[in-house]
Parts: sequence; C-alpha cells; structure tokens
Amino acid sequence: MDYQHYFTKRIADLKTEGRYRVFADLERRCGQFPVARNYRDGQIHEVVVWCSNDYLGMGQHPEVLAAAKEAVDRCGAGAGGTRNISGTNHYHVLLEQELAAWNAKESALLFTSGYVANQTTLSTLGATIPGLVVFSDELNHNSMIEGIRHGRSAKHVFRHNDPEHLEQLLSAYPRETPKLVAFESVYSMDGDIAPIAEICDVAEAHNAMTFLDEVHAAGMYGAEGSGVAERDGVRERITIIQATLAKAIGVVGGYIAGSDAMVDYVRSFGPGFIFSSSMPPMVAAAALASVKVLRRSPEIRQRHQERAATMKAKLAAQGIPVLPSVSHIVPVMVGNAALCKQASDLLLNKHGIYVQPINYPTVPVGTERLRITPTPLHTDEMMDHLVKSFVSVWDELELHKEHPKKVAAAE
Amino acid sequence: MDYQHYFTKRIADLKTEGRYRVFADLERRCGQFPVARNYRDGQIHEVVVWCSNDYLGMGQHPEVLAAAKEAVDRCGAGAGGTRNISGTNHYHVLLEQELAAWNAKESALLFTSGYVANQTTLSTLGATIPGLVVFSDELNHNSMIEGIRHGRSAKHVFRHNDPEHLEQLLSAYPRETPKLVAFESVYSMDGDIAPIAEICDVAEAHNAMTFLDEVHAAGMYGAEGSGVAERDGVRERITIIQATLAKAIGVVGGYIAGSDAMVDYVRSFGPGFIFSSSMPPMVAAAALASVKVLRRSPEIRQRHQERAATMKAKLAAQGIPVLPSVSHIVPVMVGNAALCKQASDLLLNKHGIYVQPINYPTVPVGTERLRITPTPLHTDEMMDHLVKSFVSVWDELELHKEHPKKVAAAE
Ligand SMILES: Cc1ncc(COP(=O)(O)O)c(C=O)c1O
Ligand SMILES: Cc1ncc(COP(=O)(O)O)c(C=O)c1O
Repeated sequence: MDYQHYFTKRIADLKTEGRYRVFADLERRCGQFPVARNYRDGQIHEVVVWCSNDYLGMGQHPEVLAAAKEAVDRCGAGAGGTRNISGTNHYHVLLEQELAAWNAKESALLFTSGYVANQTTLSTLGATIPGLVVFSDELNHNSMIEGIRHGRSAKHVFRHNDPEHLEQLLSAYPRETPKLVAFESVYSMDGDIAPIAEICDVAEAHNAMTFLDEVHAAGMYGAEGSGVAERDGVRERITIIQATLAKAIGVVGGYIAGSDAMVDYVRSFGPGFIFSSSMPPMVAAAALASVKVLRRSPEIRQRHQERAATMKAKLAAQGIPVLPSVSHIVPVMVGNAALCKQASDLLLNKHGIYVQPINYPTVPVGTERLRITPTPLHTDEMMDHLVKSFVSVWDELELHKEHPKKVAAAE
Repeated sequence: MDYQHYFTKRIADLKTEGRYRVFADLERRCGQFPVARNYRDGQIHEVVVWCSNDYLGMGQHPEVLAAAKEAVDRCGAGAGGTRNISGTNHYHVLLEQELAAWNAKESALLFTSGYVANQTTLSTLGATIPGLVVFSDELNHNSMIEGIRHGRSAKHVFRHNDPEHLEQLLSAYPRETPKLVAFESVYSMDGDIAPIAEICDVAEAHNAMTFLDEVHAAGMYGAEGSGVAERDGVRERITIIQATLAKAIGVVGGYIAGSDAMVDYVRSFGPGFIFSSSMPPMVAAAALASVKVLRRSPEIRQRHQERAATMKAKLAAQGIPVLPSVSHIVPVMVGNAALCKQASDLLLNKHGIYVQPINYPTVPVGTERLRITPTPLHTDEMMDHLVKSFVSVWDELELHKEHPKKVAAAE
C-alpha cells in the first residue's frame, strides 16, 4: 500500500465534495471581542466574529484574566503531572468544589476537555457496569457517541427529544437491567432544548441513570447559570451532569458532577482521566474565577437572551431563513455545502463578518447552515450590519428567502 | 440495579486491595520548584517534589511565563471554539509550524493533550484505512492501547522492544497489507529506550508505517531536544512522531508531526481533533516559548542527564534497589502495593519528600515502585537528603536492599 497516495487521495475527495475545511487564522484581541484580527492572504484584516462559542465573552472578563495571570505568577505554566502523580494543584481542588456546589451535586471531576469528559465517562460506565444498556438521543454529540461505542455495551438510539420513543425502548428491558439515558440540554446546531423533566419521568419509571450534556447551556441557563437542568428545577433527578469550561465559561476543560460515589468511581476507573496530564493551574484558576462571576451575574444571561432574540427578529424581518431556535443559537439554513462555503467566504472577504460554514459531518448533508452566536457584546450596529450583509449575500448567490416575518424582539 | 451501591462497592474493593488513589493536594510555587506546598490534614506543609513530569522545570521558566501572560493580555483566556469554528488562533498556527520544524517534518497538528493525540490518531487510522493491521509494543501507554482498540482494526502485540518478534508477526502478512507499528521511545515506568533504528529496519522491510510516542523524550533528547529519534538520527524514518506539551515542555497539550498529507488526513478525519475546543492562546504561546528555549539549550539537557545519573549512583551506593534505567527516569522497586504506599506516606509525612507510589494499573502487580524524576533544579543537598530518607524508610519498613554498588556518577 502507498500510504502517502492514500492520504492525498482522501483529501482530494474532500475537496471535490466541497467538504475540505480551511481554518480561519484569527487573533482574538482582548477587550475588543467580538472584533478580532484575521490573518488571510498574507495580510491582517479586522473582522467581527459571529460564531464564537465564547458565548458570553467571559474569555476577556477582567476577573478571569487577573486570575489566570495570578496563577501563572504563583504556580507557573503547567501542572507537571497526571492528577495522581504530582499533577493535582490546589486550584483543581477548589474548582471541583465550586463546580459541585454550582451544580448542586456532592462532587465534581475535571477533565482536560468536555470531549474527554464525555468520552471517558460514557466509555468507562459502558465497559465496567456488567450488562449496562445505553439509550442515546439520535442527535447526541460525537464525543458521546464515541464514548458509548468505545464502552461496547448494548445501545439503542431514541428519536431526538422523544420521551415516548425512549419509553418504548426502555420497556423492552426488565427493571433489574442496568440502564443509562444519555442526552443533551441545548443542541448546538439547531438550538432546540430537551424536555428534561419528561425524559427523567421515563428514565425513573424504568430505574435508568441519566447523563445530561450541558455543554451549550452551562453558564447560560438557570438562576445561577449552571444549565437548563437548574432552570427547569430538575438537577437532583439527573445522575450525571456534564459540561465544558471552554464555551460560556471562556477557558478550556470539562467536568462531570454527581454523587460522591459516582464521581469517585469515574475518577478511579476512567482511563482518559487517569492517564493524562491535568490542566494547568492558570486554566483552573481562570475557570474558577469565571464560574464565580457567572453565578452572581444573571444580568449577563438576560442580556445574552435578549441579544439572541433581537438577532432572530432582525433576520426574520428580512426573510433570511432563520430556524425557530428556542435558545441563544441562531442557525440560518443554506442547505448546500458549496453555497454555504461561498456565503461564508463572501461575508468574510466583502463584509468583514466571520461566520464559519457548518457542513457535514457536523450536520447532516442538505442541512448545511451558517450558525450565528450573538453574545452580550454584539451591538445593535453590528447586528444591523450583519443583516444588511446577509441580504446582500443572499441576493448575490440567489439563496432561498422566506416571507419576511415580524417577530417580537422579546426580552 | 442499585447504582449507588455498585459504585460504592467497587470503591470499597479498591480500598481493600490497597489500590485506592489519594491525590496529593499541591501548590506549585513559581521560582521555587521543585519545592511546593502540600495541603494536608488542614495544614500547609513544605515538600520537595521528586515525581514531577515537568522534567526540566520549564513550567517556571521566565520566558514561558512571560509568553503566557502576554497572550492573556493580548487574546484573553480561551480560544472560543473548535479549530474549525472560530477556535484557530494565530498562536496555534505558529506553534504548529514550530513543532513541524523542530521535528524535521512537513507539518504538525495540535491536540488538547498527548492522550487525545494518541487516542485520536491511532483510532482514526485504524477505523479509516481499510484492512489496516496494527503492531503494538506490549508496554505501550494506555492512550495508545485505547486508540488502537477503538479503531477496531486487526492488532498484534509484540514483545517489549523486540524487533525480532515484530519481524515474525509482520512476516505473516503480504507486503500489500497496510500496516502500522506503534511504540514509544522512552518507556516512562522502567526508563528503558526502544531500539528505534532496528524497529524501523523491520517496519521498512515490510512496508509498514511507524508511529513513535516521544512523550517522555520530547525536550530531552537530541541536539535540539525533539526526542530520541533526533538523537539517533532516524526522524525521517518515522511516519508519525507524537508527543506532549505537558511534560518537559512544561505546559499542556499534545501533537503529532509528519507529512503534509498524513497530518491533513488526521486533521480532516479525527473526531477527537474536530469536535473539541482548541487550547487557549495562553497555552499555545507558553508552549511555543518553551520549545524555542529548549531548541537552543542543550545545557539544560546535559544538566538533566547528569542529575539523573548522579541520583542513580547515590541510591545504588546505599543499596537502594534502583532499576538500571538508561534514561532520566529513576525507578526504585518496592514490589508490593501496600508497602509502596506506606513508604510514600512516610517519605511525605516524616521527611518532606513527595514521591507518589506507582501501583497497578499503571505498572503490573508485583512491580509497584517509587519513581523518581530528578530535574536540573534538584540540588546535591536535596539528593543527599532524599538518599538518607530512603535508607531510613527502607530500614523502618524492612524493605529489600541490594549489595551497595559503586556507579560512576557519569558526565
Ligand atoms: C454537545 C457537546 N458536547 C461536548 C463537546 C466537547 O466539549 P469541548 O469543546 O470542551 O471538548 C462539544 C463541542 O465542543 C459539544 O458541542
Ligand atoms: C507514553 C505516554 N503517552 C501519552 C501520555 C499522555 O500525554 P498527556 O499527559 O499530554 O495527555 C502519557 C502520560 O501522560 C504517556 O506516559
């Protein structure tokens, strides 16, 4: 076999299919977010970032930056080991306590990323609980799917956000069979939200554990912001709450929260936790500061929801086909990979607007989209400029428009 | 099934077997490494850390800290997205260029950790190259084993560092069959080093790709420090070089380096790369500064080797059973989990020395050990104190001693 030839060929295929990904080379500029620099064609361009998952702009919050720098001065750049072998720093301990309290759980456990939190927790449970059967929402994130697959337990996929279908699948097993229902709160590509209480009703009726990914909700929903489970008053019904520190928290890393015994179990048996160097003190300190700010700042969340609603209303008023998302995510349908990429290129090159095209495998073929994430820091002027630019690109590429809709810009 | 009961029971079993892990709660103190604070029994104790994988103390190097803080000021705390969706920062681009040049390869790719680099690269190759057969050294790290398992290709395990056995296994397949040989350079628990050239001879004879984990070598071997493959002059024979930014580099993160086509392939198809938020700019900037310092600083590597040789000689001279490691790693055999833990506890509580006990599953049962990692910052006085303390603990617990050996302190 000629390996070079094989790699080259597969990459060429991606290009032919219009699925080859080119990363925008950005330089975030502290204090100016969502404005950033874009290195492109040997030049530096100023752009407004409209697709960041730093949903609340916490990545530039003064308290977060001060905490990161203080930890650098105090403890240096890295943790120096895995958690067990010299890599537990006092900031890890404090952050785990804070995350447990925030989620109203006994314990929490840090991972290097939300991806590793999902992958490790789900694969460890699947591989070590004899006879476990996992029930997984069909739109679950890749990190959950890979974790479940790697656990090699029996698995059933239930229709997206469909408690009745879940009920049917669960009913096929006796009560004694160990079961786990894995789902997300906010689904990041459509912006819809799971009926958590109904899913818990069904899971409880069949004595199943629940695993909830709050990656696109942590920091943004509930009085203290821990997620949709808090908003809906159902946290104590969830066995394992999982989320990331890389999106609304603005730093990097992941966690799970739950009972002492469950967390200690994953801590003791999860390979992706045990055999990997822990996050630097500066990362843990920054995340800790961010969570503390977010717990006491409902006004950031209100402004965030208002900005998203306003953005949706402004787009709909011009007939731009925005999905009826019930969250802070504003997906605009294009439905074709090549056109989606062209629209994104035009927005970037002609209008200084950066919205990454979202193509397969992140979303199904035929549902390619531009996914806008307005933050509390996006102004009305930026929004009006975005809408004007979208209309211009829609006209230029003759993309599908809808009948203009008047939507209340809501709070 | 009673889940709480199950988790609690499995944890209790670990405690009975003496395998329950208690993490030392440390506070690294910048400028004072390897001295650190240890939070224990509600008090703060000063300890000398003897088991850090910040092998060269780069985690407190002034240029590294300055780079981290500058990036915080410039770009904020987090990257804000996956690499594809707004999460590529200019520091990532610069660091990947530096890592490629350092390893004398066309391209490099960053991951959130060395664990994810191994897991993602190996599982992606296994899952996407039709008919691939993987040949894996029996002592490979968990992250490689998990990646290979998850790829679900055919697999053979060859005896540790044994090119003849590898040759036998490879011979069973025709030349056309795609093959990958996966191994490490420095094995971190015994401190032995792979015969890389011989393994390449065999792999090349059978047209197999090679994957080399330099996690415990990057920064420490070769004229510019990129690893043992550089020292041995065989880098161009390795298809994929993998390593971490969390050990000798002193920060966090992982990478692979190789041909443009191979790297682009893993970038385009690797789920653990695609679907996870990228490392913060401050992390990439700190790692970039560290690599630059290390490339131009052979004297750090010389001092490191001298310190390790001196440590081994001092221990052997007192009959402490130190393994004949050929690297910077100094493993001292205990051979029993409970005694190993007791020795470590005594060293910490009575002597202010922190060496984590290494038990199963990190090493096989019966080979439990104390693994010492002297850095360029450990002084002669610290070493003499360590030896005196080890002798005292060995006497107190009546552990096995060897005939005292006079070993040239080398260098
Ligand atoms: C639903 C979901 N879960 C988990 C992750 C992974 O989290 P992280 O970026 O911290 O690896 C992501 C995306 O990044 C996600 O969208
Ligand atoms: C040989 C080897 N490979 C990979 C890893 C994982 O690297 P990281 O700590 O960056 O996740 C480790 C240990 O941590 C290791 O010992």
